[in-house]
Amino acid sequence: MQELEEGLAVRLDFGKLRAIGAAGADVVPVALQHADTGELLFVAYADELALRETLRTGRAVLWSTSRNELWRKGETSGDVLELVEVRVNCEQNSLLYLVRPAGEGACHTRDASGRHRAACYYRRITASGDTLEFVEEGVRPRR
Amino acid sequence: MQELEEGLAVRLDFGKLRAIGAAGADVVPVALQHADTGELLFVAYADELALRETLRTGRAVLWSTSRNELWRKGETSGDVLELVEVRVNCEQNSLLYLVRPAGEGACHTRDASGRHRAACYYRRITASGDTLEFVEEGVRPRR
Repeated sequence: MQELEEGLAVRLDFGKLRAIGAAGADVVPVALQHADTGELLFVAYADELALRETLRTGRAVLWSTSRNELWRKGETSGDVLELVEVRVNCEQNSLLYLVRPAGEGACHTRDASGRHRAACYYRRITASGDTLEFVEEGVRPRR
Repeated sequence: MQELEEGLAVRLDFGKLRAIGAAGADVVPVALQHADTGELLFVAYADELALRETLRTGRAVLWSTSRNELWRKGETSGDVLELVEVRVNCEQNSLLYLVRPAGEGACHTRDASGRHRAACYYRRITASGDTLEFVEEGVRPRR
């Protein structure tokens, strides 16, 4: 996990969607975006119950495709995402949750200072396509 | 298609990811975001070839999960998305393409004035969860 999350090698999980399909989950992808800064926090999945719970509770609720259960974001970490609104795309096969983070951040990883990262897209793929680099100077962990 | 794209009924396609899985495509979801405004344009999918082509050509290339073929965005419509950078999330199971639209917009739908919409998330889900409303006044088509 450490290498996957903090390393500089591209190791994309191209089998992820096939695994979701094989598990039989009825989900759509959800892009979660900070309503004020516009930062993309992460992409996750929601089934119909997760969407209804999101609208009912005013907090981002998702479907965990790794644990195969409803995922009330922040329930254990405290990093709740308060809902501003849910949008749907033209073809109605994806969602956009516009949210405001109530806690430290939205990503479960921590930066060099030990704080949760605000969002999950903290590395870019270099032109070669084979390596990653950290986007912000301070984000890169000391080794 | 008209009702799905311009209507006010929630008709989410929760079977989409299962269909992708069943088709056996090795893809990850891609969030495409306007590099300057931060607007989320749409969510699509990329396989390894699409990612490599994106990095090689400097334009957003995707995998069409409806046509099951490489999708060079804008090749027919002219609405090319110039690449700024590709980012990867912590767990390396999704991508973020930061792009600059070179054409009219990123969505294939058209607003009331006949112009391509800039982005696909032009409707929000109302609190009931059953209906949609257009986000911007002018975007809603006249009937």
